[in-house]
Amino acid sequence: MRRPLRRLHRSFRVAALFAAAGLAQSPSDLLKSPEIRAAFAAVEHNEPRMIETQVHVCEIPAPPFHEDVRGKELERLFNEAGLKDVRIDKAGNVIGVRPGKAAHPNLVFAAHLDTVFPEGTNVHVTREGTLLKGPGIGDDCRGLAVMLGVIHALNDAHVQTPGTITFVADVGEEGLGDLRGMKQLFYESLKGQIDAFVSVDGTGLGVTNIGVGSNRYKVTFKGPGGHSYGAFGLANPIQAMGRAIAKIDAFEVPTQPKTTFNVGRVGGGTSVNAIPFEGWMEVDMRSADPASLKAVDDKFHAALKEAVDEENARWKNRGAVSVSAELVGMRPAGQTPKDSPIVQTALAVSRALGIQETLHEGSTDANVPMNLHIPAITISGGGIGSGAHSLNESFDTKDSWKGTQRALLLAVSLVQ
Amino acid sequence: MRRPLRRLHRSFRVAALFAAAGLAQSPSDLLKSPEIRAAFAAVEHNEPRMIETQVHVCEIPAPPFHEDVRGKELERLFNEAGLKDVRIDKAGNVIGVRPGKAAHPNLVFAAHLDTVFPEGTNVHVTREGTLLKGPGIGDDCRGLAVMLGVIHALNDAHVQTPGTITFVADVGEEGLGDLRGMKQLFYESLKGQIDAFVSVDGTGLGVTNIGVGSNRYKVTFKGPGGHSYGAFGLANPIQAMGRAIAKIDAFEVPTQPKTTFNVGRVGGGTSVNAIPFEGWMEVDMRSADPASLKAVDDKFHAALKEAVDEENARWKNRGAVSVSAELVGMRPAGQTPKDSPIVQTALAVSRALGIQETLHEGSTDANVPMNLHIPAITISGGGIGSGAHSLNESFDTKDSWKGTQRALLLAVSLVQ
Repeated sequence: MRRPLRRLHRSFRVAALFAAAGLAQSPSDLLKSPEIRAAFAAVEHNEPRMIETQVHVCEIPAPPFHEDVRGKELERLFNEAGLKDVRIDKAGNVIGVRPGKAAHPNLVFAAHLDTVFPEGTNVHVTREGTLLKGPGIGDDCRGLAVMLGVIHALNDAHVQTPGTITFVADVGEEGLGDLRGMKQLFYESLKGQIDAFVSVDGTGLGVTNIGVGSNRYKVTFKGPGGHSYGAFGLANPIQAMGRAIAKIDAFEVPTQPKTTFNVGRVGGGTSVNAIPFEGWMEVDMRSADPASLKAVDDKFHAALKEAVDEENARWKNRGAVSVSAELVGMRPAGQTPKDSPIVQTALAVSRALGIQETLHEGSTDANVPMNLHIPAITISGGGIGSGAHSLNESFDTKDSWKGTQRALLLAVSLVQ
Repeated sequence: MRRPLRRLHRSFRVAALFAAAGLAQSPSDLLKSPEIRAAFAAVEHNEPRMIETQVHVCEIPAPPFHEDVRGKELERLFNEAGLKDVRIDKAGNVIGVRPGKAAHPNLVFAAHLDTVFPEGTNVHVTREGTLLKGPGIGDDCRGLAVMLGVIHALNDAHVQTPGTITFVADVGEEGLGDLRGMKQLFYESLKGQIDAFVSVDGTGLGVTNIGVGSNRYKVTFKGPGGHSYGAFGLANPIQAMGRAIAKIDAFEVPTQPKTTFNVGRVGGGTSVNAIPFEGWMEVDMRSADPASLKAVDDKFHAALKEAVDEENARWKNRGAVSVSAELVGMRPAGQTPKDSPIVQTALAVSRALGIQETLHEGSTDANVPMNLHIPAITISGGGIGSGAHSLNESFDTKDSWKGTQRALLLAVSLVQ
């Protein structure tokens, strides 16, 4: 294991004692301050080492639900970078504090540990010029590297912020991880202590202020089953499911806020000539609007019940079928309005740095605070990425320091 | 390989030259004739050797579509038993003739070679007292043994029949074999030359005169697919399938003649959060009445078309889906009326032998001639069977010769 940060930054643990007296409120004003100029220079200077760290962390496997080894390394890196009160919470989130003059505002600045790749995936990173290739190299090893880059640059430039920044390397952002790291953080570990939230996720220079929520179900229809000819007249779980799917297909949903539904997978049955004893389907519903998501979810449950009632009535309750819907994924929906201070600050940071900004929607760690009406956005970490979630994922480090500078200016702006 | 028949029966090739002058028309009259009495005695005498043959043949694997090795052995046994013009047709049916005084009536007397068991199944037969255990020992090694038992007993008793009996060990009776042996026999190999048909299938002493036909389809719905949120608004193949299943579930079908339908298996989709590019289902429809089977089949095809049309209209033809239905199984339907001469003869045989007879319906080799209005029934081969189509299949040989005697008397009665 390479440990590129150890020797150089031990002294930063006692750094940043200066008051940030000169720091003004607006990002463009902050950009003119000596501390931020120094921090920006440090970002550029440190970037090659941060890239080393990005590669190093990325070569520690972090499959869904198994982020612990990578998490322990982040704990070590947080301590090495001088963060205070470094700890790992119950879910596996690694938390470290960079105290400001005051405890509040307290900004949580996060990047996720987990990848979509299962155990056994070859996570070796190869390099060709500025191009790094490896599973997870952008999503979200880049976010972890940006987070460390921000900490080190603030330290190098002795920046003391008015408010506090709490850094979090979190678990469970991807897929079935179901944002469990964020749920633990906001519902328990730091409940009531977070004033704003920024996560750095992936590559490029975007801002996400709409958190698309989703409810995912595995629905199972059951009945006794039997011979297709000999037992004909029994209710059929797959046919009940067909009725449910036909109803779901006819749902009317709003286009604004965009709300969607999908029957993504189906299965069941043992033989063409047997009435099945089971049929199952996986259903996904999404919206950035919690009320719209609830509305389509309610329709969905009603459709299941109606379908089973119809099926049993059609076959006069012979071999009656039943249905159960297991919630296998729940990502809360939310959005941070465009005219909110946090989004306006992010846009002002981009303007100050000459970044053309457009706002995006997505499903990220920020969904959880958005749903709680805590100011929250997700930004991306710079560089040029491609192939996220594929084995061919790559990250081009060209000018990637711009992403770290943008993140640093935003973080400092939000704890003024 | 044991070859229990070779030594003893070489001489039978020149047997049966006597005219069957004393044979009368009715089974009970036949039963009093010296030739049939001698043949019945021979059945009892030969039964232990026939059981050996049943075991021997059963230990030659005959998985679906791979009946050839067992078929070659039947060819050898047919030759050894003195049948004429022994040959294997294009489908793999083994055919051998026991000429009567005239070429007609020509009765085809059949048993099937194939089992439901895949390659690699342990087909060793174990014995405990009168109980034999082994995959296929009853279905239809018993039928093959009965067929050989009839030939040898007729030979031993020098019975010459007025008409001719053509013995057939046929392929493709089970499952996806789809009666292909019978289709070959009646549509090509012996087209137009068969006056009546009896198959011996399985155990017990039943008679089947109703041939339940079936049409089986694998139906595939296709579309471009896409992200469940990003590409929402595309037609969904699984949801189109749901509409089709809901329509099928509502079909009204006659109870007399019994007509059935079943969606037995479904599958498709790659992820809960992807609009699938494919969904598929397997559908089985059955009836003993060809017109009723065609009627439900027509409804089925109409339902598929309507479902796809509705799905594409509902999503305004975005990502339009299509459907194709592949016929994966087609067993023709038919029945031989209860008052037909062949069924009346079978019932008279049973009465003459003191067998309590009830008529059954099923899906057997006899379906094909029934569909062609050729007099046809399936009888079972005596003994006591259990666990057909399972690895625990067993056959109790107690009084199993009764099945062979019944088969012999029926065969002789039908070629008077």
